[in-house]
Amino acid sequence: MYYTDKKLQFPVRVETPNPIFARALQQAIGGVEGEIRVALQYFFQAWGCRGPAKYRDLLLNTATEELAHIEMLATAVALNLEGAPLSLQEDVSSDAVGGSVLNGMNFRHILSTGLAALPENSNGVPFNASHVYASGNLAADMVANVTAEGSGRVLATRLYNMTNDAGMKDMLSFLIARDTMHQQQWLAAIEDMGGLTASLPVPNSFPQEKERQDVSYAFINCFIEGVAPAQGRWSEGPSMDGKGEFSLVPGAPMGEEPMLSPPRPSSGAQSEQMFDRKAAE
Amino acid sequence: MYYTDKKLQFPVRVETPNPIFARALQQAIGGVEGEIRVALQYFFQAWGCRGPAKYRDLLLNTATEELAHIEMLATAVALNLEGAPLSLQEDVSSDAVGGSVLNGMNFRHILSTGLAALPENSNGVPFNASHVYASGNLAADMVANVTAEGSGRVLATRLYNMTNDAGMKDMLSFLIARDTMHQQQWLAAIEDMGGLTASLPVPNSFPQEKERQDVSYAFINCFIEGVAPAQGRWSEGPSMDGKGEFSLVPGAPMGEEPMLSPPRPSSGAQSEQMFDRKAAE
Amino acid sequence: MYYTDKKLQFPVRVETPNPIFARALQQAIGGVEGEIRVALQYFFQAWGCRGPAKYRDLLLNTATEELAHIEMLATAVALNLEGAPLSLQEDVSSDAVGGSVLNGMNFRHILSTGLAALPENSNGVPFNASHVYASGNLAADMVANVTAEGSGRVLATRLYNMTNDAGMKDMLSFLIARDTMHQQQWLAAIEDMGGLTASLPVPNSFPQEKERQDVSYAFINCFIEGVAPAQGRWSEGPSMDGKGEFSLVPGAPMGEEPMLSPPRPSSGAQSEQMFDRKAAE
Amino acid sequence: MYYTDKKLQFPVRVETPNPIFARALQQAIGGVEGEIRVALQYFFQAWGCRGPAKYRDLLLNTATEELAHIEMLATAVALNLEGAPLSLQEDVSSDAVGGSVLNGMNFRHILSTGLAALPENSNGVPFNASHVYASGNLAADMVANVTAEGSGRVLATRLYNMTNDAGMKDMLSFLIARDTMHQQQWLAAIEDMGGLTASLPVPNSFPQEKERQDVSYAFINCFIEGVAPAQGRWSEGPSMDGKGEFSLVPGAPMGEEPMLSPPRPSSGAQSEQMFDRKAAE
Amino acid sequence: MYYTDKKLQFPVRVETPNPIFARALQQAIGGVEGEIRVALQYFFQAWGCRGPAKYRDLLLNTATEELAHIEMLATAVALNLEGAPLSLQEDVSSDAVGGSVLNGMNFRHILSTGLAALPENSNGVPFNASHVYASGNLAADMVANVTAEGSGRVLATRLYNMTNDAGMKDMLSFLIARDTMHQQQWLAAIEDMGGLTASLPVPNSFPQEKERQDVSYAFINCFIEGVAPAQGRWSEGPSMDGKGEFSLVPGAPMGEEPMLSPPRPSSGAQSEQMFDRKAAE
Amino acid sequence: MYYTDKKLQFPVRVETPNPIFARALQQAIGGVEGEIRVALQYFFQAWGCRGPAKYRDLLLNTATEELAHIEMLATAVALNLEGAPLSLQEDVSSDAVGGSVLNGMNFRHILSTGLAALPENSNGVPFNASHVYASGNLAADMVANVTAEGSGRVLATRLYNMTNDAGMKDMLSFLIARDTMHQQQWLAAIEDMGGLTASLPVPNSFPQEKERQDVSYAFINCFIEGVAPAQGRWSEGPSMDGKGEFSLVPGAPMGEEPMLSPPRPSSGAQSEQMFDRKAAE
Repeated sequence: MYYTDKKLQFPVRVETPNPIFARALQQAIGGVEGEIRVALQYFFQAWGCRGPAKYRDLLLNTATEELAHIEMLATAVALNLEGAPLSLQEDVSSDAVGGSVLNGMNFRHILSTGLAALPENSNGVPFNASHVYASGNLAADMVANVTAEGSGRVLATRLYNMTNDAGMKDMLSFLIARDTMHQQQWLAAIEDMGGLTASLPVPNSFPQEKERQDVSYAFINCFIEGVAPAQGRWSEGPSMDGKGEFSLVPGAPMGEEPMLSPPRPSSGAQSEQMFDRKAAE
Repeated sequence: MYYTDKKLQFPVRVETPNPIFARALQQAIGGVEGEIRVALQYFFQAWGCRGPAKYRDLLLNTATEELAHIEMLATAVALNLEGAPLSLQEDVSSDAVGGSVLNGMNFRHILSTGLAALPENSNGVPFNASHVYASGNLAADMVANVTAEGSGRVLATRLYNMTNDAGMKDMLSFLIARDTMHQQQWLAAIEDMGGLTASLPVPNSFPQEKERQDVSYAFINCFIEGVAPAQGRWSEGPSMDGKGEFSLVPGAPMGEEPMLSPPRPSSGAQSEQMFDRKAAE
Repeated sequence: MYYTDKKLQFPVRVETPNPIFARALQQAIGGVEGEIRVALQYFFQAWGCRGPAKYRDLLLNTATEELAHIEMLATAVALNLEGAPLSLQEDVSSDAVGGSVLNGMNFRHILSTGLAALPENSNGVPFNASHVYASGNLAADMVANVTAEGSGRVLATRLYNMTNDAGMKDMLSFLIARDTMHQQQWLAAIEDMGGLTASLPVPNSFPQEKERQDVSYAFINCFIEGVAPAQGRWSEGPSMDGKGEFSLVPGAPMGEEPMLSPPRPSSGAQSEQMFDRKAAE
Repeated sequence: MYYTDKKLQFPVRVETPNPIFARALQQAIGGVEGEIRVALQYFFQAWGCRGPAKYRDLLLNTATEELAHIEMLATAVALNLEGAPLSLQEDVSSDAVGGSVLNGMNFRHILSTGLAALPENSNGVPFNASHVYASGNLAADMVANVTAEGSGRVLATRLYNMTNDAGMKDMLSFLIARDTMHQQQWLAAIEDMGGLTASLPVPNSFPQEKERQDVSYAFINCFIEGVAPAQGRWSEGPSMDGKGEFSLVPGAPMGEEPMLSPPRPSSGAQSEQMFDRKAAE
Repeated sequence: MYYTDKKLQFPVRVETPNPIFARALQQAIGGVEGEIRVALQYFFQAWGCRGPAKYRDLLLNTATEELAHIEMLATAVALNLEGAPLSLQEDVSSDAVGGSVLNGMNFRHILSTGLAALPENSNGVPFNASHVYASGNLAADMVANVTAEGSGRVLATRLYNMTNDAGMKDMLSFLIARDTMHQQQWLAAIEDMGGLTASLPVPNSFPQEKERQDVSYAFINCFIEGVAPAQGRWSEGPSMDGKGEFSLVPGAPMGEEPMLSPPRPSSGAQSEQMFDRKAAE
Repeated sequence: MYYTDKKLQFPVRVETPNPIFARALQQAIGGVEGEIRVALQYFFQAWGCRGPAKYRDLLLNTATEELAHIEMLATAVALNLEGAPLSLQEDVSSDAVGGSVLNGMNFRHILSTGLAALPENSNGVPFNASHVYASGNLAADMVANVTAEGSGRVLATRLYNMTNDAGMKDMLSFLIARDTMHQQQWLAAIEDMGGLTASLPVPNSFPQEKERQDVSYAFINCFIEGVAPAQGRWSEGPSMDGKGEFSLVPGAPMGEEPMLSPPRPSSGAQSEQMFDRKAAE
């Protein structure tokens, strides 16, 4: 069960409202790198968490914190929209400036919300919950969470660089720091589970003798003859999990050209397709 | 530019076609853990890659390999659909078995493709390219790629466990091994860039003194009073990047309750909302 | 800011796990009538709320409660999936029953989550945040909220009727009761704002003299000549807002056939379209 | 079956074409508050309507009218796009104005339609038919329809306020009036079914003794200790359906922390998760 | 403006309701090959039609007819759902048959509509209006319309083959015939515009001397060395528009490896990427 | 299996980077008329191709070529973004020009990719793989492919007209030429299968005597009485397949008003709907 104190985790202050920056901030709310995604991702990982309770607790705790981040950003969007233009100039060509601001806005900020935030990204694309990764495998999920916080922090620094507003920079410096911590804590959870090497390959519960081990550490070259392959740490030396040796292998098909049966009479194909290739060859 | 030899990277053989397994295999084609996603993700990362050429080459090479994996899976779907039921029994209740198979199928396999694969997941949801992560930050991308291969290998092992078909198990043992290698190679690329610690926090080009460093390594407790916090490796000891010390901090708002201006007269609000809270308080 | 006590708002108990019912329950999590939608909807309405603080408080309170409902349902899905089939029978036709259960499952419950809930509906379609209605107009939002709780309660009663599991019926009887209350409270908020009549037409801040008042209370008949129009309370008698009188008006165009300019030479049309209809007529 | 006379229900006139306003108008075509949504919603409610014929007739009639509204708006978009810029200036920085207009356009108006309307919203997001609410419960549907017309009228007034074009204001004054009537008529249908009180709680066919009536009229406080609860009309006094008394109840979990079984060996989890929490506690 | 007579264009009769066939029929309503798509596509093509009025009339007429087809199919879905199971058996394993039927249903038919149609496809994916092709180029649109009717008729024949219900076969035989006619009429419109050859290449208003005519009729071979190219009518002989001669050309890059600038300091990249490849080479 | 030589099929050169044109180019990458779509469409048609091998080879060849086109366009986007503004002016109103450029950008080009391409359209809507048409019917697919190349060439010519950059015009002149060829080759494939007439109606394997042949060549007039029908080549003369004669038929319902059963007691309807219309009439 959940509770609130109605207050912001960190102060949100806008010195000069900027409706274009309001649009940009939407990426951190409803974008794939944004806060709705991490909140829901950590919640669903927690709610479906099987295994030791401490990981469930960790996930649940941080999911709950992320709600406060969505709240901060939604507030920042609303404050940046105060005073935004609501009408088109009769003749845009005689007043480029106003038109420029309004033209660059997310129109739903005017038309759909009355100057408030939306669960959408900076292009107005609504958040889609297929981005919630909760695989039932804790290592896969923890790496996914590092990914989410890495791309989230990249985004937050770009927003930081985009604005000159001291209030916004202040808020973002807090969110950037939290993204630092969250990258750290998911890695700490991997360490807690025995460390990255022990976790590999994900999932580590599948017996590796069942996989085709001749290609488990082979870098297969797909560059055409005459082009130098992409060699590097990944094509020679011990593998990262210490269980094998990287090798460089020329790309070549192990299979043949696939051959499907002809279409069945009642399956909606053209008559010209009713040809049995296997029989013919 | 790209070329093909029309052959399969690895043989695809189905001993007993099973249209239900064809549905399941779709997850590995068009699911978020699937091959269209990784192919496009690595291609877009390569095409937008700024920095040393070797990473672009690495990405481009593996993107090209992934096309062959989609091809193998699409072939496997088509072969599993051969002989699938195309019509409903007149009375399903007198023949549960046939009905059961058809009922469990992806109906678009019958109605939309004439017994062939689709770029959709196992529930028939089409692939959405918002899942292509290509952030312009190589470390973020490499972690995202480990995530993709981790969730991909989890999926492939589940498919392996789902089927008894020797041909399908063989094909999957190959794909599982490739997922092993691909997890390895993206981690090798991180090592090549100086190792995980040097890469943190992502992005490492943002000066950390600009973030609120008092919360950069703080685990903020969001459990209500009286409930033990989620302590662990993430709440004490040195941080994973060696730059700080984890601490456990009680959750408490640093900000106040947010207060927005009243709606503007022409902004489409109700008259009852025209109340200036700030002025009143 | 938000907090949790890790406990369920109401006990979730499953006597006989049923993976098909797990699929059905997903509608109440990620469906358009479900709990993610109301949680996000009330949060975004609260975070963007302009006007008296009490409505913001009301919205924020209930948004926070809804999180607990998602949590209950996600737990119910995970419990219903315990013991679910993970593999296909070698020959489905010799064992219809097992196949039947597996065939009817959301395959992502096996393949993507390891037997846990997803933010998707009962057909596996991910939640899309465009369903979050937060218009900036409190009356519009309150009616939208009654809609959400009405369709939510319809759904919950259908789930109640679908299952015989005593634990699930118990949980649903709680959720149904909360949907009753939430329908009530949003209507109470409308009463608090002066009542439904005073709120109409939404938005009531737009001067009605600016609308074409000759058709503001007219039921325009679109049935073809010879077919009796759809008469009823809506075509005669005083209007619901007490400001007009309903009338029945024959459908007839007030405008002419629209006439667009010909395509411009460089706009990508066919040469055959370069015909000036206006000039010709 | 359906028929047309090729004429507009109301004249559509644009005095000064404005491609930015064309973008804005798209919200009323393909937005969630728009006309495609209501047309399809009323059609699907009508086509699936079970019960007295008069409601089906009402729905079918208005669905048919809404087609004429999409047509008017699509015509308005096409007329606003006449004369729109089709090319970028060689150097935008030397001509801010033209760039400003083009930059603010929906690019698909140039690239995909040759200066005509799209079934998309003002941000270019295509209409998604999940927004068609047709629940099979007439009261739920009628409230959903009031919601649609409420948010639709809010949108139309915002568009009205956005433009100075006399032709557009005229067209919108008609659509605003129709939204007034449609709000009225759906409420009239509820009155026709016995009135709002009799309709509650939706669905009224579910025996209320099956719900947990101790929380059917309870406002559960989710504000943390020390923060005043959101009291109001919704927390005391008779309930809106006259069947109960509102009360204010402190939020407290009735359930325990959920506990899931450990992952099964072949379910793709990590080995570290194979821990039986229930057995351990 | 539009009108209805409330009657079905063709009788819809279901002899033995089959909820699985109801699911299948959804593909013809909300699938990409379905009737919502063609109705909206022809409407948007008509509403944006620039050029001679006769094409607008043709499009508007058929769009209007397609509404009647959606209506027929929605009615067919509702009738096929009458008597469908609404509850799970307490123990599915003791009654495979009933479970089998329910498992194979679109659960939203039970949970979201009360046994009526949805604007979704046969897998429950909602219709997405991005499938409305209305390019502003009449030849492109007419070919798109042939495509729509071709895939529509393929679908309708597959549905015909799927069912044994005489009423459903009768309804489908009507829809199949209309798809025949609609394929014909769009081709007739192309003939009316001068015939297919004159229409090519679409758009025919773009001066062909501006394209790289050396590759306008060249079949570029992308098969790797040693694999026979895909020769046929498309690689030799006169081109279909009579303006050129097909040729077979070996695939070879005309460009070099692309080289992007290094990331800018404040653009969120990793420090390791700050390497100027152009300067180094 | 697939291979690459890392080189561009045709040189991509940008003389004056223009981030607005980068946004426009996205339509050709991730739009429904774009290259991801055709690449995936031809691949899925090839991988599921049943019948003579030559069509599979043709499809596979061109799918492979299309990858090179996505690559060219992605490179063009990255080059157009070099030097793009990354920050908002402190006061946009004092510097309209910079604001104008940034306002018109796809913000994800700054925030999500670090100045590189995305698999999205020009409005930032991600590519959705439901646009991959692969019907299992070769004639339907070939017409779909002509459609794709027709709308693709329309788009490419509009992009050509939008820019003054010589490098971009050069690249587009190549892509336009390839779209010419690809229109030709799919038509050539139809000729190879016997020609368009022989292919009709698609699918030609369904016995036409099973369709309601009285309406197979009838143009049904849906214009209301008093409005002249849309007559033309499609309403008289021999049909395009030479199998019938076009006729003009007045629109009239052959069916009656549909009548559904009343809702079942436990199906979630309102009590007021429990009315048996059939019994009453």
